[in-house]
Amino acid sequence: MATVTIWNEFRHEREDEDVAAVYPDGMHETIAAGLAEHTDGSATDHEIHTATLDEPEHGLTTDVLERTDVLLWWGHEAHDEVDDGIVDRVQQRVLEGMGLIVLHSGHYSKPFKRLLGTSCSLQYREDGGTERLWVVDPGHPIADGLEESIELPQTEMYGEPFDVPEPDRLVFVSWFEGGEVFRSGCCYRRGSGRIFYFRPGHETYPIYEHDAVRRVLRNAVEWATPTDGSPRTFGERD
Amino acid sequence: MATVTIWNEFRHEREDEDVAAVYPDGMHETIAAGLAEHTDGSATDHEIHTATLDEPEHGLTTDVLERTDVLLWWGHEAHDEVDDGIVDRVQQRVLEGMGLIVLHSGHYSKPFKRLLGTSCSLQYREDGGTERLWVVDPGHPIADGLEESIELPQTEMYGEPFDVPEPDRLVFVSWFEGGEVFRSGCCYRRGSGRIFYFRPGHETYPIYEHDAVRRVLRNAVEWATPTDGSPRTFGERD
Amino acid sequence: MATVTIWNEFRHEREDEDVAAVYPDGMHETIAAGLAEHTDGSATDHEIHTATLDEPEHGLTTDVLERTDVLLWWGHEAHDEVDDGIVDRVQQRVLEGMGLIVLHSGHYSKPFKRLLGTSCSLQYREDGGTERLWVVDPGHPIADGLEESIELPQTEMYGEPFDVPEPDRLVFVSWFEGGEVFRSGCCYRRGSGRIFYFRPGHETYPIYEHDAVRRVLRNAVEWATPTDGSPRTFGERD
Amino acid sequence: MATVTIWNEFRHEREDEDVAAVYPDGMHETIAAGLAEHTDGSATDHEIHTATLDEPEHGLTTDVLERTDVLLWWGHEAHDEVDDGIVDRVQQRVLEGMGLIVLHSGHYSKPFKRLLGTSCSLQYREDGGTERLWVVDPGHPIADGLEESIELPQTEMYGEPFDVPEPDRLVFVSWFEGGEVFRSGCCYRRGSGRIFYFRPGHETYPIYEHDAVRRVLRNAVEWATPTDGSPRTFGERD
Repeated sequence: MATVTIWNEFRHEREDEDVAAVYPDGMHETIAAGLAEHTDGSATDHEIHTATLDEPEHGLTTDVLERTDVLLWWGHEAHDEVDDGIVDRVQQRVLEGMGLIVLHSGHYSKPFKRLLGTSCSLQYREDGGTERLWVVDPGHPIADGLEESIELPQTEMYGEPFDVPEPDRLVFVSWFEGGEVFRSGCCYRRGSGRIFYFRPGHETYPIYEHDAVRRVLRNAVEWATPTDGSPRTFGERD
Repeated sequence: MATVTIWNEFRHEREDEDVAAVYPDGMHETIAAGLAEHTDGSATDHEIHTATLDEPEHGLTTDVLERTDVLLWWGHEAHDEVDDGIVDRVQQRVLEGMGLIVLHSGHYSKPFKRLLGTSCSLQYREDGGTERLWVVDPGHPIADGLEESIELPQTEMYGEPFDVPEPDRLVFVSWFEGGEVFRSGCCYRRGSGRIFYFRPGHETYPIYEHDAVRRVLRNAVEWATPTDGSPRTFGERD
Repeated sequence: MATVTIWNEFRHEREDEDVAAVYPDGMHETIAAGLAEHTDGSATDHEIHTATLDEPEHGLTTDVLERTDVLLWWGHEAHDEVDDGIVDRVQQRVLEGMGLIVLHSGHYSKPFKRLLGTSCSLQYREDGGTERLWVVDPGHPIADGLEESIELPQTEMYGEPFDVPEPDRLVFVSWFEGGEVFRSGCCYRRGSGRIFYFRPGHETYPIYEHDAVRRVLRNAVEWATPTDGSPRTFGERD
Repeated sequence: MATVTIWNEFRHEREDEDVAAVYPDGMHETIAAGLAEHTDGSATDHEIHTATLDEPEHGLTTDVLERTDVLLWWGHEAHDEVDDGIVDRVQQRVLEGMGLIVLHSGHYSKPFKRLLGTSCSLQYREDGGTERLWVVDPGHPIADGLEESIELPQTEMYGEPFDVPEPDRLVFVSWFEGGEVFRSGCCYRRGSGRIFYFRPGHETYPIYEHDAVRRVLRNAVEWATPTDGSPRTFGERD
């Protein structure tokens, strides 16, 4: 059982009819529905909350973050509007152990760039081509219950180089119809917190309704949930 | 709940009075007792078996290994007597997902050397000095519930260099009274299997009765227990 | 300046007309020619030797290995004929610092499996399709002077999962026309030795005459050449 | 041959007599002298510059950074006075390939925290005790020509936990007389740049006049010097 907060920029869905058609209640609600039930329809035991950019403190008060075990993050057009003080909070909580799952265009979000220290740049092309995500680490918990690959019939292409630190573990590598590849499932640890970057998720394709994608997100929440650990005591010693 | 098999060479205890005084039923039984109960005395839910060198097939039949989620390994004076065919089996099962916890002088065991590919050599001194194991990765599940360090008043020294591949994660570093250091808690993945090397465990000191050491072993069993994963399919494709 | 030994099984070239047409003097001679000169035709300063399976001690006497800074390895149909004692020697020299570059079907060679500890299995299809190797680590010395990707118009496909330990650094990821991906340039350290696995190299396509492939091999030789290091002293201490 | 810039906060030396007695011209000049000559007194071929906090733009103009292959960084009491715009520049240049060597209390500097993404906190005690740095990776180029350990008779203690990402390679682990350990030589890659953190260097002990410490810094400069690499092209593709 984890307390999960799904953060969504929630602008495209309110500004763009095509996006609203796919995600009428916002992408966060679709993601929440996917975390709330298993593939067979039975309920998971997570406590799930959502938060969005235009709420006070972006919905990420100190109190909310304190109670959150795993934070998911989707942002795209308004990364710059995220307050640096809130980014400080998110970073601090990750170092203390909160899991962070960064989705798709969230590669350019402030919390991800802050925690990784690189530009997080990549190549892209909005061509609606096919993506096939290959599992390259079949023993990883995030791959539990998947087939050898996940096929998304239509998506935006992301290509290498992807300017991130070498992942601690690489779980997925994507093949794109147009000729590119991408490290599309990357695990990191920063402080006591687990971070997972997962590429799929463009706003105009119903990616978060795809069964295998939902399975990945459920697995990632399990994986990113912190355990007790031991003391993180810093400063002067006797 | 994991099915755990504790493998012990079980020679020192039968040949050497000093060792028998510390571990009258064999080290495997003391380790088993530690895995069977929590620090507060309540029972864990593991199914625990033991196996020793002088049993047929060293107690590690195909059937036993098939059912084992996590294998612990203690050996010292008779590494060479372990049959290469059994080592093949252990390696194969680790690649399929079985966890492996290698203890102390097991750094020179055939399964460990086979899976790591290096000499696994180190420096040592039997001086009965103090060891302090520092947690360097406080967010790691193997550190759950520990203090910032574990102190063992009397032990054998192991010193660097330790000829192993760079660990995927380093959980403990030991300080020794005589002036040495050692990477004493090292995590690896090979195939789908998790491997943890844990340094403490000399046969003439009651290391496996130490509460924090027992906690580490329980944590390591949890950590090393495999999840479902996805298919490991190899060979020719259509 | 490095002393390089190129080891080739050298059977296909003598048994199969199609292979002999591509590599009339053996693949090792073509690889040697590629290491002997830069892309602009000027000479490199490496001292280059070759060795083959059917020579005494497979051409890898203790003396040869002692003098070798970097060993390249190509094998395919006769992995099993490589003597285990010679594999011991190669492993020992790698741990002492000798670089090892393993090519294509050498993923199943005894030295590679010995040093990595896994099955090194993969998926494959002999379809003569296009491969594009993407540089995913543009700052790596093995990528020096390359374009963003290398295109091989016709080759055999290798697909994930590739049962190797997570590479220390991943330099190339391959895209295949048929829909697969592969981690095709993987760096490891074992002991003091650097190991590089490079996928391209099927025997019936003239891969080792490709300029960018030759550049990769020259870069890899530079990268894998050992430096002085510090003492690897093991055993009992005072 | 590398173009090296040694950056020093240069405040302690001008404010504190004890520090001035050890480093009368500033620590940067002592470090520069160590990089300018080999242990045998012969000259190295580096082009060496220095820069300090109170110079315009902290001495780190765009032009200076463009020409710098490797930047060394020592700071302590005035980390906060380093301008964020200059930190942006340093980060950008590291991602492009510039090497960065961070010394001692520089663990809390803005460029190091920016590039690593963690708090970089640790424990410390100013007790003037003995430190012994053990080489745990004897094949690493930064260990070239060293003995198995480096002994510093008097220094400040730094203890674990050290809140940094797991190093790509760990070269040194320190033993401290008072009972602590520390990962004192840590290698990272961020973008195309190599980063090395080296612990020794307190301002009131003549650490940078120690032969083995000087050797480490020379080795680290060699290691951190960038090679050509391949294109880092980001953005929209055709």
